[in-house]
Amino acid sequence: MMTAPSPEELRQALLRPRSVALIGASGDPAKLTARPQIFLRQHGFQGHVFPVNPGRETVLGAPAFARVTDIPEQVDHAHIMLDADPALDALDDCAAAGVTVVSILADGFAEAGGTGRARQKRLLDTAAAGGLTVIGPNCMGVVDTRSGFACTTNAAFAVDKLAKGRYAVISQSGSIIGTVLSRGQARGKAYSILISVGNEAQIGVGEIGNLIVEDPGTDGFLLFLETLRRADQIASFARRAHELGKPVIAYFVGRSAEGQALSVSHTGAMTGSFAAARSFLGHHGIAVVDFFEALIESPAALHQTRSFSARPRSATVVSTTGGGGAMLVDQISARGVAISGAPEGARRDLEGQGVKLGKGKLIDLTLAGTNYDTVHRVLSALIKSPETGAVIAAIGSSAEFNPELSINPIIDAHKDAGPGAAPLLAFLLPEAAESLRLLNAAGVPAFRTVESCADTVALILKQRPPAPDGATRLPAAVTGLLRTDVPCVLNEIDSMAVFRKLGVKGPKQIFLAGDEALPEELPFAYPCVVKLVSADLPHKTDVGALRLAIADRAALIAAIQEMKTSVRAQRPDAAIEGVLIQETCRGVGEVLAGLGRDPLAGPVMTIGVGGVLTEIYHDIAIRPAPLTAGTAAEMIEEVNGFALLRGFRGRPEGDFDALAEAVAAISALALAPAVIEAEINPLSVGRKGEGVTMLDALIRLAP
Amino acid sequence: MMTAPSPEELRQALLRPRSVALIGASGDPAKLTARPQIFLRQHGFQGHVFPVNPGRETVLGAPAFARVTDIPEQVDHAHIMLDADPALDALDDCAAAGVTVVSILADGFAEAGGTGRARQKRLLDTAAAGGLTVIGPNCMGVVDTRSGFACTTNAAFAVDKLAKGRYAVISQSGSIIGTVLSRGQARGKAYSILISVGNEAQIGVGEIGNLIVEDPGTDGFLLFLETLRRADQIASFARRAHELGKPVIAYFVGRSAEGQALSVSHTGAMTGSFAAARSFLGHHGIAVVDFFEALIESPAALHQTRSFSARPRSATVVSTTGGGGAMLVDQISARGVAISGAPEGARRDLEGQGVKLGKGKLIDLTLAGTNYDTVHRVLSALIKSPETGAVIAAIGSSAEFNPELSINPIIDAHKDAGPGAAPLLAFLLPEAAESLRLLNAAGVPAFRTVESCADTVALILKQRPPAPDGATRLPAAVTGLLRTDVPCVLNEIDSMAVFRKLGVKGPKQIFLAGDEALPEELPFAYPCVVKLVSADLPHKTDVGALRLAIADRAALIAAIQEMKTSVRAQRPDAAIEGVLIQETCRGVGEVLAGLGRDPLAGPVMTIGVGGVLTEIYHDIAIRPAPLTAGTAAEMIEEVNGFALLRGFRGRPEGDFDALAEAVAAISALALAPAVIEAEINPLSVGRKGEGVTMLDALIRLAP
Repeated sequence: MMTAPSPEELRQALLRPRSVALIGASGDPAKLTARPQIFLRQHGFQGHVFPVNPGRETVLGAPAFARVTDIPEQVDHAHIMLDADPALDALDDCAAAGVTVVSILADGFAEAGGTGRARQKRLLDTAAAGGLTVIGPNCMGVVDTRSGFACTTNAAFAVDKLAKGRYAVISQSGSIIGTVLSRGQARGKAYSILISVGNEAQIGVGEIGNLIVEDPGTDGFLLFLETLRRADQIASFARRAHELGKPVIAYFVGRSAEGQALSVSHTGAMTGSFAAARSFLGHHGIAVVDFFEALIESPAALHQTRSFSARPRSATVVSTTGGGGAMLVDQISARGVAISGAPEGARRDLEGQGVKLGKGKLIDLTLAGTNYDTVHRVLSALIKSPETGAVIAAIGSSAEFNPELSINPIIDAHKDAGPGAAPLLAFLLPEAAESLRLLNAAGVPAFRTVESCADTVALILKQRPPAPDGATRLPAAVTGLLRTDVPCVLNEIDSMAVFRKLGVKGPKQIFLAGDEALPEELPFAYPCVVKLVSADLPHKTDVGALRLAIADRAALIAAIQEMKTSVRAQRPDAAIEGVLIQETCRGVGEVLAGLGRDPLAGPVMTIGVGGVLTEIYHDIAIRPAPLTAGTAAEMIEEVNGFALLRGFRGRPEGDFDALAEAVAAISALALAPAVIEAEINPLSVGRKGEGVTMLDALIRLAP
Repeated sequence: MMTAPSPEELRQALLRPRSVALIGASGDPAKLTARPQIFLRQHGFQGHVFPVNPGRETVLGAPAFARVTDIPEQVDHAHIMLDADPALDALDDCAAAGVTVVSILADGFAEAGGTGRARQKRLLDTAAAGGLTVIGPNCMGVVDTRSGFACTTNAAFAVDKLAKGRYAVISQSGSIIGTVLSRGQARGKAYSILISVGNEAQIGVGEIGNLIVEDPGTDGFLLFLETLRRADQIASFARRAHELGKPVIAYFVGRSAEGQALSVSHTGAMTGSFAAARSFLGHHGIAVVDFFEALIESPAALHQTRSFSARPRSATVVSTTGGGGAMLVDQISARGVAISGAPEGARRDLEGQGVKLGKGKLIDLTLAGTNYDTVHRVLSALIKSPETGAVIAAIGSSAEFNPELSINPIIDAHKDAGPGAAPLLAFLLPEAAESLRLLNAAGVPAFRTVESCADTVALILKQRPPAPDGATRLPAAVTGLLRTDVPCVLNEIDSMAVFRKLGVKGPKQIFLAGDEALPEELPFAYPCVVKLVSADLPHKTDVGALRLAIADRAALIAAIQEMKTSVRAQRPDAAIEGVLIQETCRGVGEVLAGLGRDPLAGPVMTIGVGGVLTEIYHDIAIRPAPLTAGTAAEMIEEVNGFALLRGFRGRPEGDFDALAEAVAAISALALAPAVIEAEINPLSVGRKGEGVTMLDALIRLAP
């Protein structure tokens, strides 16, 4: 009987295998399938390397084997570089040989239609039966710089020296591990691990993250994402990383519709909403950068500033160049970060030393102040002050030819100030690779573009822990209402009953089932609202099945008659279950709150103003569900249109506390797998203290 | 009597003076005031250089003069490097010595409060009296690479070799000329002219642009802007550049409120609206980049593609890296550019040659297709096809270590295809400076960041000529109505009379002046609208001076009475001029259209949905006025909220043609200097063919 490998055995086989088989290795050094063997040798890998190639005796000087089963020792890791079908045959061999980890380069799997899906099934079946851990297909390799395990076809690893660093890269695109390595090393950044996860048929970003998250040589993680697969694994990895004080930063392709469509054609992913996926990442504590180079430049800055809580969340910009300082202030502010000038105390101290800072929010030392002494004094005073948040120096042309004037004092100010100081960052305007390297090496995160610098400053100052968990179980009274044998839509009476059990209040109302007669007196005052109840009519207004502001009994009788006539004419197929009469609720405004299931991010809550404007302006907030009222309060902050409920221009303020509680309550329905969709629209928001009232509701169930 | 220099004499004194005085030149090479003399010598300037320094016999080996008036020959150009007050004394000397162009380094002028403003006045007075052309203050220098005239204190010009190029840089920030030089030269880009205009007291971006626009050695212009001064000069420069086929590209600091505030503290500029200024630039044919490096990387691409009209305005992306290609497609699409796959013809040809392109919109050659032959065939077929717009190659790790596989074929495909081919651009994922230089040198614009590449692709495909001029004069009947002796607001009757003369229709209405009695019959049907007319009540709804949907005569009488009571109670000071009764207009929707005067951009038209939503979502379009109906039609396209008038979800479509005509008509009021503000709000938009109707209007006049 086969024993599953322990996590430690898996990590070893993944990152520092005692032995690796290169299946399909070429003896022609110009071929890409020759690269892994060349790179392993070049970067000092000490394990055994076995090329597998039935057509040759030796490959690049090493004895070759016809099949992996011919290798006379235990193989920890096999990298298969054959086309899709032969790769599957080789995978069978790997199972037979008891290989621990297999990575597969070929494409032609799930992304390639019917044949590809059949291949993917065979891959998964073989892996399950053989106890194999499989990375890919479409995996460009796995690299551990510490062990020299550069098992990849990516040309970037032809670099002379593979520097050892403390950040791990996990990418759904194989080429990006090379891009990060190349750009990073060019400015003094280095990595511990770089893994191309390809199509993630069996394990992917989340599973690999969980496997390596405790790696003592790794301080943080860079993710390049085109989709989310098995999002729960990504969430648990991110939350564990946060507990360990290791930041996780992601660049996510897919903000445009075309970008989203590509994630289908390119890696065989499902397409969900970018907004939902992005919100998912943030919810679980992953920082998402907008600008690609920030993926490379921000991790060290985030790691250094992870215990930031005591300082204000504002940025102080010091420049030797007014134009460069203005660009930086502009870009940082545009990301919603407050800019502070010099704190009073620091300003007084500096004036005592003869250094004048001017009055503006930008501390522009000008050309005249571009000297070691002024730069050092000003930065030292600012980072030692408890009233500064992040301090950023924007350095002009001196950074290229006169680092002694403006770069050395930054490094020294940082070094001299010690651990309690504010984080200090630098943006260099000219092409100044050597100064960038010096600053980074000295622990001052340094940036070559203003956009990457501003992205990073915003990440540092806005970083948040993962959101707390929402509800963990539904009351039995609720689950009892959600049982179904066939897919169905609950009418608003039944939907409201579910929401009432969750604590969301509805209006006073009476329901007349079928053709039940209207009572002489309503249990509430006119004017009232009247609607026809039918699960077949989710959009009542369109078919005239809703009337507002009915003034009296006569008008009510007439309205019911007219609505029935209208619906029978337009939708003769619709089953009318009865008539619902409700009191009129006049709140401060109305909102939409709905639970849905995103194909990538899973259950998500969405809130917005509702109606056509929400569609036109995409003015919504999204979060994974279930969520807490605290998270719901953050969502409410994000919706611009809620300004109308926030006392805009003398209007009364809405009861946002009650709204947040209601949103959290609705989100708990994510725990019922039967609920495909659940929405209250509109939800009327009363004045502060008056609560919220659902006016219409809909729940869609699956068996 | 003094003769003003001709433009040619000015250009010579500015860019290739026969003699230059360096006033305040230091003999200590470590001082920044020593730099111009060092740089002039280093970069081969052939004119005479006269250091002016009363404390020394010689400066850096050259004989020094105490004052510029002591120099024994005509001085074409003087650069003053003294503090503000001595600089003004030196300026007097320059006037006395008959210097042609003077540039001033000092700060402490208009941006520095009362004393500074007095200095600025003295500067302007001296310049006017002495016939001097003055650049600055706060000017970091003027550089012409062709003549070696590197008259600047910017440290970046310490570069070994100052390459000669064909693009001119004009910057409101002195440090930025160094940044552009440094970053540009690092990737094979070079410049003809670089000028720091400082605070533009006398001449600035527009005037200098007009002076050098015809320079035969300059193919285009890069502007770094923090504000607009004398916008009309910038407009005429940009329009002339367009006629000459020379692109003008601008980076504009100030998208955030903080950035806008800085333009005040930093260079003494007034603060206008970023949106208005940006729209001004676009209106006159200046391309605005969002991403700073695109300022450096896009000009050559724009110049090469200036005759682009015959090709479709779409982008085709070819990649050797799926991830890099996906990033590029995503960023290009996010900028509103359509992505095309391979045209059918090219696809068939390539399949005939055994090259398969896949089905998606991204043409991903994958690692397997990363070879000279495949890359060359595919790119050649695509750029030769008349059905492609711009073609962009995204190249992965091979760009760094194997240019023979992926870079050489790009260069050759471009070279072989000749002049009729589609523009070909490249984005390189790894750090690959040499490949970037090779591509740029071969005429293939190459980019190191995906954002700069996408910005440039969008600029190329969306480039537009300057907008045509709007109305050039107002009818006498209109100007007659706009005379005033005191600042005043026209009431809606008088305002509407002006707009009617411009051709904008109002509703049927009657006006009862003072307490004039209501006639028995209205000349239109009920329901009607009634309002009190008063120039003191611009916001009628707030004080109950407007009632809609009045059903009959009795209700009308009651409404008038109630309104008067309400206004007298709330605003006893308001002079009520009478009562206006209007027919009810039911259009498809209502819009706001207003003319205002922006402190930077001058007269601008703004349109939007009106009401609180326009404020919350900033959903407006702005253009300089006067404008044509064609320009107004573009504005209408930009307002998202107008979706509601565009047949959204089965609604009727609005009469956008009539709306555009009305907007153009209103914009003509820009020609009347007395009009400070002119607004129709709301303007009711009827169904197609039904026109538009103004429902309320307001004009604010100055004497």
